[in-house]
Amino acid sequence: MNKHLGKQTIRFDNPPVIIATSSIVGPREGEGPLATYFDTIIEDELYGENTWEKAESKLIEKALDKVIEKANKTIDDVKYIVSGDLLNQLSASTFGIRNFKIPFLGVYGACSTMAESLSIAAIIVEGGFADYVIACTSSHFCCAEKQFRSPLELGGQRPLTSTWTVTGSGAIFLAESGEGPKITYVTTGKIVDFNIKDAMNMGAVMAPAAADTIINHFIDTERDENYYDLIITGDLGKVGKDLVLEILKQYNYDISSKYMDCGIEIYEPDKQDTHSGGSGCGCGAVTLAGYIFSEIGKGKWKKVLFVATGAMLSQVSLQQGESIPGIAHAVAIEN
Amino acid sequence: MNKHLGKQTIRFDNPPVIIATSSIVGPREGEGPLATYFDTIIEDELYGENTWEKAESKLIEKALDKVIEKANKTIDDVKYIVSGDLLNQLSASTFGIRNFKIPFLGVYGACSTMAESLSIAAIIVEGGFADYVIACTSSHFCCAEKQFRSPLELGGQRPLTSTWTVTGSGAIFLAESGEGPKITYVTTGKIVDFNIKDAMNMGAVMAPAAADTIINHFIDTERDENYYDLIITGDLGKVGKDLVLEILKQYNYDISSKYMDCGIEIYEPDKQDTHSGGSGCGCGAVTLAGYIFSEIGKGKWKKVLFVATGAMLSQVSLQQGESIPGIAHAVAIEN
Repeated sequence: MNKHLGKQTIRFDNPPVIIATSSIVGPREGEGPLATYFDTIIEDELYGENTWEKAESKLIEKALDKVIEKANKTIDDVKYIVSGDLLNQLSASTFGIRNFKIPFLGVYGACSTMAESLSIAAIIVEGGFADYVIACTSSHFCCAEKQFRSPLELGGQRPLTSTWTVTGSGAIFLAESGEGPKITYVTTGKIVDFNIKDAMNMGAVMAPAAADTIINHFIDTERDENYYDLIITGDLGKVGKDLVLEILKQYNYDISSKYMDCGIEIYEPDKQDTHSGGSGCGCGAVTLAGYIFSEIGKGKWKKVLFVATGAMLSQVSLQQGESIPGIAHAVAIEN
Repeated sequence: MNKHLGKQTIRFDNPPVIIATSSIVGPREGEGPLATYFDTIIEDELYGENTWEKAESKLIEKALDKVIEKANKTIDDVKYIVSGDLLNQLSASTFGIRNFKIPFLGVYGACSTMAESLSIAAIIVEGGFADYVIACTSSHFCCAEKQFRSPLELGGQRPLTSTWTVTGSGAIFLAESGEGPKITYVTTGKIVDFNIKDAMNMGAVMAPAAADTIINHFIDTERDENYYDLIITGDLGKVGKDLVLEILKQYNYDISSKYMDCGIEIYEPDKQDTHSGGSGCGCGAVTLAGYIFSEIGKGKWKKVLFVATGAMLSQVSLQQGESIPGIAHAVAIEN
């Protein structure tokens, strides 16, 4: 039981190693400030398929192919794929990994899914249950708008609090040993519900969950903001980022000098019409797999706390007047 | 790496113990042959709520309350809840566990979710990451029909291959030590797709996945059908059960003398108008938590292989002409 710290955190005595990552993104992400960090930029949202959903599955398939190649492994080396996405019934993951014939654990944490899949993958590896596990996730702007909001063809105006779902998939190849940054801690979030019902303001929904997980990570690990070089949330956007800083200040943590949000980094909101920033499981996934992993490799950061955030809404729960619960999972990555 | 056997199986050297289970079911399940095994039978499908979805969340909430009580523990003892359901974005689980303030890992394997959540919970416990973890899942007939098929008010005829989604929730309380049957092995399934597109014949969709997981379990563990007292699938129904037997015979396994299916046990199909049998994550969950756990306790069976099966379809994937991929996860429970 010494691996479990405090209320929500696991410490890995033999930290799993990220030996490779891959990222594939859509055209808009490919025009953004992180473009050079991504392995592949697709030319249009359909990616040669006849539906957006099939395109999203293909993103996952290609991300998996790429990460196995970059890890210098074969499909047979991989013991588990832990993957999830925003589509109903995880269909992007299911169809994307169908041809791999690898044991599959489907997970769902809304946009927090990259940190959830990475946490479970790390638990499997560190527990000695497998040597190689891939954690993966995806999102797709067109699929998400269609499923959660309104038909794209409607062309409705979006409020400035809204975020833009990233089209992309990121995959992380975890190994029990090897070269690369290590996953040293995971802090699993609990549902945090501040009774917000505005599905066009996900930053406000998820910020309290992000703050809760960061605070509990600090308490459980006896660390604070001074320990990390970078604390980065998944997809809070501008609205949510400001709220996280404000909530944390009430608890006497000032993370402002080392705090970033993947949703803010991935686009240039003013030029790219993405309002509060990027969102979706793909946002945190490709930013982690592309930008963060690369810069850790170059030595820019050594100690990173990756905190992916999710809004656990469904169309039906919203229509039935329910609030939107948030959740956030944190993964400490250290080199 | 000695914990990982063959291609898909984990062996637990310190098997996690099922110290308590709870089950809560709807009125139809309460009229079925397993009625006396369930903790709670609700009187109507709305369970005092104004929507079926809220009723399903309440089923999870009550199942969790009950299993914590039956384990003689408090909420604070529980380190993780691993839960999933069939509703879009896991909303039954999210809203059902919202008030517990316990770290939450959302999982999705369609109707295989009980075995998936139990597998992940067992990995967490046996890996030394937590002492107490609850695995849970639910389904609800009215929610599932509405979401996957057609409005209940339509009153459409259902073909004889169709199954009836169980209304119910089952929860399993896992501990690192204590009194109760143990989880000795888990075999995680891969996606198996036989290109079946008939959403009214889930048994046919899932049977190949069940057979694949059972065969791989046998190969990985060097066991065969003679080892187990009971091999029980989650919700194949009559159609799927026959197919599993047939496929396994082609691989020279004859499990017929010890094979059952939760979907066949839970209803009396002819009297209860449930056609091929029961289905849904709740089907395997309440049958395991009620019937199987109870009978293991009484000594009827000592070695049980629980194989929950899922059909990974979404409304959208079906409408886009995709086939329905199946998956099955197996958990060996031994006393």
